[in-house]
Amino acid sequence: MEPDFSPLDEFLGDDFDGYLISADGSDSNQLYLSGFDAPDPYTTLYTPDGIHLLVSTLEYGRAKKESRADTISRLADYDFRDKYTEYGPIAGKAETIAEFLADHDVTSVATPADFPLAIGDALREDGLSVEAETEDVLTKIRAVKTDEEIEHIRDAQESNEAAMRAAEDLIRAAAVADDGTLSYEGETLTSERVREEIEITLLRNGCALDETIVACGADAADPHDRGSGPLRADEAIIVDIFPRDKETKYNGDMTRTFVKGTPTPEIREWYDLTEAAFDAALDAIEAGATGADVHAAVCDVYEDAGENTLRADPTAETGFIHSTGHGVGLDVHELPSVSQADEELEAGHVITIEPGLYDPDIGGVRIEDLVVVTEDGYENLTDYPVELVLE
Amino acid sequence: MEPDFSPLDEFLGDDFDGYLISADGSDSNQLYLSGFDAPDPYTTLYTPDGIHLLVSTLEYGRAKKESRADTISRLADYDFRDKYTEYGPIAGKAETIAEFLADHDVTSVATPADFPLAIGDALREDGLSVEAETEDVLTKIRAVKTDEEIEHIRDAQESNEAAMRAAEDLIRAAAVADDGTLSYEGETLTSERVREEIEITLLRNGCALDETIVACGADAADPHDRGSGPLRADEAIIVDIFPRDKETKYNGDMTRTFVKGTPTPEIREWYDLTEAAFDAALDAIEAGATGADVHAAVCDVYEDAGENTLRADPTAETGFIHSTGHGVGLDVHELPSVSQADEELEAGHVITIEPGLYDPDIGGVRIEDLVVVTEDGYENLTDYPVELVLE
Repeated sequence: MEPDFSPLDEFLGDDFDGYLISADGSDSNQLYLSGFDAPDPYTTLYTPDGIHLLVSTLEYGRAKKESRADTISRLADYDFRDKYTEYGPIAGKAETIAEFLADHDVTSVATPADFPLAIGDALREDGLSVEAETEDVLTKIRAVKTDEEIEHIRDAQESNEAAMRAAEDLIRAAAVADDGTLSYEGETLTSERVREEIEITLLRNGCALDETIVACGADAADPHDRGSGPLRADEAIIVDIFPRDKETKYNGDMTRTFVKGTPTPEIREWYDLTEAAFDAALDAIEAGATGADVHAAVCDVYEDAGENTLRADPTAETGFIHSTGHGVGLDVHELPSVSQADEELEAGHVITIEPGLYDPDIGGVRIEDLVVVTEDGYENLTDYPVELVLE
Repeated sequence: MEPDFSPLDEFLGDDFDGYLISADGSDSNQLYLSGFDAPDPYTTLYTPDGIHLLVSTLEYGRAKKESRADTISRLADYDFRDKYTEYGPIAGKAETIAEFLADHDVTSVATPADFPLAIGDALREDGLSVEAETEDVLTKIRAVKTDEEIEHIRDAQESNEAAMRAAEDLIRAAAVADDGTLSYEGETLTSERVREEIEITLLRNGCALDETIVACGADAADPHDRGSGPLRADEAIIVDIFPRDKETKYNGDMTRTFVKGTPTPEIREWYDLTEAAFDAALDAIEAGATGADVHAAVCDVYEDAGENTLRADPTAETGFIHSTGHGVGLDVHELPSVSQADEELEAGHVITIEPGLYDPDIGGVRIEDLVVVTEDGYENLTDYPVELVLE
């Protein structure tokens, strides 16, 4: 099942012969367009005729098996080694790419905004027209998922559910020490310990992740704080997990907020309000609505209850101080933005919905699911209870 | 302890007012020059006056605490939001950077080769001189480690030793089934199972990794094969681990080859030869020697014993078919290259030494340690036995 690259054809139109990427497989545009992952930079050319790859001899066999390219060339086909020796690594690479482009009758290319400046300039010196596009044309294509991509994301989210379950079980099983800290099997239960449990569970489910948030009390009031130290009873603990499946490279994303013991009245109120905002956001989702519509649904709930938002006060440091959500795919943050930025939602967009409230004096609360936009609503890719109190 | 940036001053000379990076913290040049890590792109300017950071308001407080910058500016100081709205994300960013550069009296900059083309072009439209340098000036500075960096790498390598120990223990404890496959606690012992043990051990030691090689038999004959399926007795199992410390971001790297049972005579001979090549390489290391000298020491041992090498035959597909080593630091592959490329070794370079032999009919053998180059030799950062047979 191939993505629909027709917006790229439209973009190229009469202005460009092709779209050119030079990056390694950690670049999601490269991974997506080539259907290939390699640790060193390689070159992908899109033309109305198809997708053309230029790789090292080392990667050639694997590229033939794994990539979505219609044609595959080797650096050695263009005597890259000789060019490297004569012109150096960058100019030698550019000379090689220039000959590869000529073979495909390409004299003008558009590139992603982050195309390497040195290669772009060297191609220009070889007489090619090279223009970095700033419309995110490929990133916008990536935002609309195929059924296969949605299944990959659902699988990553299933692993995420297992990890969240492991974290919840650990917090639930904890005892409360006299000083209010949680303890498990005789040791103080810390953010770090819960994070380790999450990471090991994800590993066993074939996922990796760089960061996980397990933040308690005032830590949880900073949406970017990963959390550290002992977890405490009666305080809100935000657990935000965004794993990447190692095989498919697609991400999941989910947040739950837990209290072990009895939440303060403020946390209870915030949680109920956040769940209402969460439901309001979900109700607002459908193809044709905008991210701004969905974001507005959240802001309305919060503002009607007297809470501060960035919409009401762009300098707010407490209250609802981030956007409602973002696209998820090969990148854990990608298009579309579910925020005041006025981006229209399309069927196949996979987005997070993650309202939350923050104040260092109270703590933080956030609820986040991952959903796919459909023609008349959404399908939730997350199957995990929304429940604050762990008895 | 600050790195020695004087080669950057020399490089800038009269040609450039400053060195400019726009990238997120996953870019090692950015991480190194700024001393700061953030998930979204930010801007670092090096001038003979110091290091100057331009970050979002969100990152400002943390940048003040964590970065090595002498001055820190916020995007908001230059009305980035207004520029974003007026000019769009790229041109708006470039306008902002242009004003930031003007504040530092900078009108001409050098950038790394992979500087984003769109921003480079937009800065040029604002009248700035922007040139991507292809001498790897910053990457070469990064190659020479400070004492603090060496300690970070030593720590990562210690975690690596714990992971290698866990892998070795698992293979050692395995039973041999009637069909020659290894089994552990009643289940077939696979590459995947050993890899999981390695990854969990690394997690518990604060390290992450994307890839680990646990490759047996013919799998091990392809240096890029991660390995899969059952491990077998009497065959060579290559275990290559390159973890990254999550806190410091520095890498370790080590390879061992194990046989559970009795190695074939070819594997035994290859192992002894590889150990001899490994020792010869170590003996050749000192400041002032070149990577080519060290690589030649390995090739001499192999060729004298009648084995094929890429030096003797650049199209070789069996024998010693890769370079002897590479630098390790914030990137697991960085300068200097320990290969036919004629790069001089300097005190403070941290390099791998990893000779090996490969043939699909025999399997693969590789031994790898991580060492720091000193004035009169090297210090080995690896403390792990070199031993083939696990009884």
